[in-house]
Amino acid sequence: MTTVKDILDFLETVAPSSMKESWDRVGLNCGRLDRPVTTVLVALDPFADVCQEAAEIGAELLVTHHALLWEPGFITDETEQGRNALFLIENNIACINAHTNLDCAPGGVNDILAQKLGLTDITVIDPKGTDEKGRPYGLLRQGVVAEQSLYSFMEAVKKALGCQRLKFTDGGRKVNRVAVGGGACGSELQDAYKAGCDTFVTADIKYNQFWEARSLGINLIDAGHFHTENPVCVYLTEKLRQAFPEVTVAMSAWHADCASFY
Amino acid sequence: MTTVKDILDFLETVAPSSMKESWDRVGLNCGRLDRPVTTVLVALDPFADVCQEAAEIGAELLVTHHALLWEPGFITDETEQGRNALFLIENNIACINAHTNLDCAPGGVNDILAQKLGLTDITVIDPKGTDEKGRPYGLLRQGVVAEQSLYSFMEAVKKALGCQRLKFTDGGRKVNRVAVGGGACGSELQDAYKAGCDTFVTADIKYNQFWEARSLGINLIDAGHFHTENPVCVYLTEKLRQAFPEVTVAMSAWHADCASFY
Amino acid sequence: MTTVKDILDFLETVAPSSMKESWDRVGLNCGRLDRPVTTVLVALDPFADVCQEAAEIGAELLVTHHALLWEPGFITDETEQGRNALFLIENNIACINAHTNLDCAPGGVNDILAQKLGLTDITVIDPKGTDEKGRPYGLLRQGVVAEQSLYSFMEAVKKALGCQRLKFTDGGRKVNRVAVGGGACGSELQDAYKAGCDTFVTADIKYNQFWEARSLGINLIDAGHFHTENPVCVYLTEKLRQAFPEVTVAMSAWHADCASFY
Amino acid sequence: MTTVKDILDFLETVAPSSMKESWDRVGLNCGRLDRPVTTVLVALDPFADVCQEAAEIGAELLVTHHALLWEPGFITDETEQGRNALFLIENNIACINAHTNLDCAPGGVNDILAQKLGLTDITVIDPKGTDEKGRPYGLLRQGVVAEQSLYSFMEAVKKALGCQRLKFTDGGRKVNRVAVGGGACGSELQDAYKAGCDTFVTADIKYNQFWEARSLGINLIDAGHFHTENPVCVYLTEKLRQAFPEVTVAMSAWHADCASFY
Amino acid sequence: MTTVKDILDFLETVAPSSMKESWDRVGLNCGRLDRPVTTVLVALDPFADVCQEAAEIGAELLVTHHALLWEPGFITDETEQGRNALFLIENNIACINAHTNLDCAPGGVNDILAQKLGLTDITVIDPKGTDEKGRPYGLLRQGVVAEQSLYSFMEAVKKALGCQRLKFTDGGRKVNRVAVGGGACGSELQDAYKAGCDTFVTADIKYNQFWEARSLGINLIDAGHFHTENPVCVYLTEKLRQAFPEVTVAMSAWHADCASFY
Amino acid sequence: MTTVKDILDFLETVAPSSMKESWDRVGLNCGRLDRPVTTVLVALDPFADVCQEAAEIGAELLVTHHALLWEPGFITDETEQGRNALFLIENNIACINAHTNLDCAPGGVNDILAQKLGLTDITVIDPKGTDEKGRPYGLLRQGVVAEQSLYSFMEAVKKALGCQRLKFTDGGRKVNRVAVGGGACGSELQDAYKAGCDTFVTADIKYNQFWEARSLGINLIDAGHFHTENPVCVYLTEKLRQAFPEVTVAMSAWHADCASFY
Repeated sequence: MTTVKDILDFLETVAPSSMKESWDRVGLNCGRLDRPVTTVLVALDPFADVCQEAAEIGAELLVTHHALLWEPGFITDETEQGRNALFLIENNIACINAHTNLDCAPGGVNDILAQKLGLTDITVIDPKGTDEKGRPYGLLRQGVVAEQSLYSFMEAVKKALGCQRLKFTDGGRKVNRVAVGGGACGSELQDAYKAGCDTFVTADIKYNQFWEARSLGINLIDAGHFHTENPVCVYLTEKLRQAFPEVTVAMSAWHADCASFY
Repeated sequence: MTTVKDILDFLETVAPSSMKESWDRVGLNCGRLDRPVTTVLVALDPFADVCQEAAEIGAELLVTHHALLWEPGFITDETEQGRNALFLIENNIACINAHTNLDCAPGGVNDILAQKLGLTDITVIDPKGTDEKGRPYGLLRQGVVAEQSLYSFMEAVKKALGCQRLKFTDGGRKVNRVAVGGGACGSELQDAYKAGCDTFVTADIKYNQFWEARSLGINLIDAGHFHTENPVCVYLTEKLRQAFPEVTVAMSAWHADCASFY
Repeated sequence: MTTVKDILDFLETVAPSSMKESWDRVGLNCGRLDRPVTTVLVALDPFADVCQEAAEIGAELLVTHHALLWEPGFITDETEQGRNALFLIENNIACINAHTNLDCAPGGVNDILAQKLGLTDITVIDPKGTDEKGRPYGLLRQGVVAEQSLYSFMEAVKKALGCQRLKFTDGGRKVNRVAVGGGACGSELQDAYKAGCDTFVTADIKYNQFWEARSLGINLIDAGHFHTENPVCVYLTEKLRQAFPEVTVAMSAWHADCASFY
Repeated sequence: MTTVKDILDFLETVAPSSMKESWDRVGLNCGRLDRPVTTVLVALDPFADVCQEAAEIGAELLVTHHALLWEPGFITDETEQGRNALFLIENNIACINAHTNLDCAPGGVNDILAQKLGLTDITVIDPKGTDEKGRPYGLLRQGVVAEQSLYSFMEAVKKALGCQRLKFTDGGRKVNRVAVGGGACGSELQDAYKAGCDTFVTADIKYNQFWEARSLGINLIDAGHFHTENPVCVYLTEKLRQAFPEVTVAMSAWHADCASFY
Repeated sequence: MTTVKDILDFLETVAPSSMKESWDRVGLNCGRLDRPVTTVLVALDPFADVCQEAAEIGAELLVTHHALLWEPGFITDETEQGRNALFLIENNIACINAHTNLDCAPGGVNDILAQKLGLTDITVIDPKGTDEKGRPYGLLRQGVVAEQSLYSFMEAVKKALGCQRLKFTDGGRKVNRVAVGGGACGSELQDAYKAGCDTFVTADIKYNQFWEARSLGINLIDAGHFHTENPVCVYLTEKLRQAFPEVTVAMSAWHADCASFY
Repeated sequence: MTTVKDILDFLETVAPSSMKESWDRVGLNCGRLDRPVTTVLVALDPFADVCQEAAEIGAELLVTHHALLWEPGFITDETEQGRNALFLIENNIACINAHTNLDCAPGGVNDILAQKLGLTDITVIDPKGTDEKGRPYGLLRQGVVAEQSLYSFMEAVKKALGCQRLKFTDGGRKVNRVAVGGGACGSELQDAYKAGCDTFVTADIKYNQFWEARSLGINLIDAGHFHTENPVCVYLTEKLRQAFPEVTVAMSAWHADCASFY
């Protein structure tokens, strides 16, 4: 019978923990290794609604991108994270996360994002190393699209990622070579620029980063944290379905950013 | 004749440097104290276009909210900040900034923002001290609006601040008691919540802060860094005009956020 | 109905968290504040056997001296502490601890230990402050016994604390003024000496501390971590019974040190 | 004529200072390198009684495991360590120590301890490197005894080391593969466990380390700091006698732990 | 009979250790408190020649300005400081130092230096506190001389302190208000300048400090570390003679800087 | 046309920035890379008089050993360094410095100093690495002179470096093997001694360093910061003239130490 440990071991091959950033913590967040698993829920975040959804579909395991517990502390209903952890443990639901290891891994968050945006000739910007198959890994990806106006490209981004709105600054250049970084990668702007890209798609961009882009003359697009990272859930879901055909793997139907535009 | 020093001394009464955060640096950024001043330009940021504008209108002094130099370094055209500093000095334009001291000061960034949004009964949240007139000072402000739906309030915010779009999460509550913090104050969300506010208007909000708001049940509105801080420029301009009637005080016509929505 | 929060609030009056050492963490360790409580188990440590015992007697709350979780981490069965926390949460058992706050509080660990050893004229050595009733608090206690040989006193200690063996060094003095510190207080030896004591009873004493005692000429007795701290369980049990007559308060029957002598 | 320097140089071959822990200080503690040596005293600690003994037997050199001075300070009779250093210098007695370098060295503290306990197939646990002869060095040793009950093994330990009492926790396993670490090595318990040992003999074990052993299911025996480290004195004495036949090498007759059991 | 402790206690009234800089260590450097003292040698430094001199005149105590041991370490003849300490201890000579406490104390190094230079109206620059008699204490002193040329003043300095040469920079001002700081006080130049002094006499001045003086327009004179601090030896000698008429108090005849000019 | 960048690139080959100390900052200090250069001024320090001189001779570039800005700060006339930077920028004069990279580089400050003093068989003491031509680099140099008295050698030093006076301590040895370190290298005394030198020429020597030299028995000569470093200006001037024959390269005529002797 498939156990939590079987799935943890499989995810280690998909996103080796050795590829994570040094400050990050990944792996089994709560639960027991030998717990049998018949149903898995895959989601971006282990937020309260997602935990609720996991319970409702009878999942014994939740696989997420972001961790369940961020700060050291006790597990009580005095905090939001404590409440989520209590709920999962009380309902015998284990939780595994793959965070910066999945961002950097070949085939992970940023490869998925690049493909989703239709980039070709996708490569790793500033690789941190190679995996055992010799494939480079690292945070950002870059690739090529047919040269087009920024507005044409943004229209395509909205369609590909299902975003309501994009926030952007126009760097005054046509779009041809695009860097991508799912989630809050604004601080990597210089790396995207030095790699020769004319356009950078990421999320949670700060005021001064938009100004920095304008001064460098690079198009900078904030497509939203959720929309740039969520595509990896489809990938994880499929990977798990292939590896564990006997297990039901659901992707969170509770499937949206909590922020809107008006 | 009015000098840079005269204006620096006056700004110290408007936003005493003792009110700044310990990590912040404010005051004269470049230039000479005894330089005569006939024209001042007031702007949010000493970015390249603003420096250009200052030169074009013949200003001898630029007064800004954000600092000219953020990191220790040499003053060369190898960096954006170095280029801006070189340009100002080469053109004999001094630069003074008032940053977190102006955020916290009575009548400063956040009082202006609260007034601009039509709040009444405006008070300081968690005051850090009192000024020499006994007025409390500190980062956030709170106040009251007639009870209304979130959409009605957001419509008013867009009009008041001139924003193209708001990014927000709906906390599920009517709007009545509103906290405000110009610029990136997302990390102060707990303080706004504990003060009993149902709604918080600030900028540069991160993904997890939207989720935190949703879980607390507080409306959170990102109205943009520029739009929440820029109103203070009108205030600074008027203050300077009153204090120095012989000086021409212009507000930057170069007057927009560099980020747009699509 | 009595809740976890009611008992947490009561324990805050017995051992205020403001009296704890700065590095320590105390309070609710796991569980929910509004959980009704009909049965409490009091024990020194939330070890696996104690957690089992709590479940067996139907306790909804475990009150301990030592904390459930010492190091930041995830809550999984990969570690002993994770297993204990999982077990308690899965069985809906909350856990509260009072550690260095209970050591220092008037009437706490060290007052109980001093009384148990028959000391009179008990006072606090180097008080850290006073509580709201004006009573001094701090780590060590000192008091007086009728002058006697070290062997006579050690015989009494063994009887009073139920120790199998004592490890000690003979400082060459009669016993009359005794300092006590439950648990590992060997590093406080100088304080006991400077307070004028001829004998110090504590636990987990290291090699060089025995030598330091010998060189100072003070009798030093290691009566065991468990035996010097466990008496406080009786006190906590009685306090809880008085305050919550409607609740069943049991003291752990699983009641022994895990270390023996041969 | 043999000098202090000759013996210092020889000891560097027995326990190279490059094998010491980074926080440790070893070598010549007090005295002059060119002082002629006719008599050496070997002891575990340079305590007051040992210094007295050295003077009484006319030794010009004291060789110890623990250092003479632990903390930076002046050399006065205001402290115990100052008094010992004053006494040695006033009596023209040099002092050399070999501490963690001797713990780790091939043939050092822990090899001696392992042999003393009758272990066979002795190897280094987690070697830190190899010496110039290619022999691995490191802190702990492991080896094999004929499978036996814990009580049978403890009887043998008491005989071999001359301990009055052992403090122990029963991990519930037969004794067959034993790890040893002289002195306070309780924090290395996990390393002994991961190496596959069923039993670990060391000293100065703390309360929670006994509990950790119980939870891991490993027998843990505290045989005393003195008793686990003192056998190395015989080894050092013999080594020095072989190397310097013209010198009288005495082992401290003042030869006991200062702690007893009652 | 007078003991080391009697003299240590007396020096604590002359230069309270509470006046020392936090990084400094002062008091008994080596030796025994109850050692009878018939002869004291006073010197600036406990260098090898001074230690030799102390032995030759039969002193049981050496009182110095600088400490015997600067860095933590063992007491061996492998280092200069170890050799000096060995020599003193072997010859039963105690050593007491008063360093930054004597610099700052009323009547100490810098008051003596100011008097020696003929200053009047001597006051403390930036006092750090007051002693029990209400007298301010602190590092630098300032005072007044009849207005004169820099060369005239330097002539007087050479005579007063017995210097062979002065190294100086001419700040372009007459000498009237003079700051003094014995030893290496070049980093206090700004304090002397802000106090309104036209001239600063100290020692061990660095290249950039001369340039800083020139740019500030203040005369800066390096009169040598030895020559600016040694006058305090006369003061200490007299103080000790008055307090202990039964003791012979000698001032080091070995009485010169080791650096010369060519 | 020759630009600032051309000269910056050339100086990188003379004194690669990879040879600098980690705490040091070197390179372009102020100005623009593409500025045409017809005249360069070479000087030891970018002090106010030197900046003035650069303006007077129409230099577009100042090349110095010491940096223009030492501490992070704004560029205002409130500080000496701010004033110098303002002056240079206002006058369109760029500034490049080569500091510890030039001290260490083959042919740099210390090679020049060694040659100037007539040393033969010049080698690097404790090399830190080799450059791309395989030449070792590092701070100090040593070399040989014909054996002579210290006074004879000092006479030669004064002539070679143009010093008014030397401050020195006589180590009691003939001069034959000499170590040199331009500027304040007193803390490298042990390295010079261990390299077998009998004499060390450097600058800004502190009181205790003279004593350390005396105790080691090594002649120590303080020839002044300016005089030991300034010879490199001739070297830089010549190098620049050879590399850029079309550019006028002047060496500062404002050419003296600001400190004198009396």
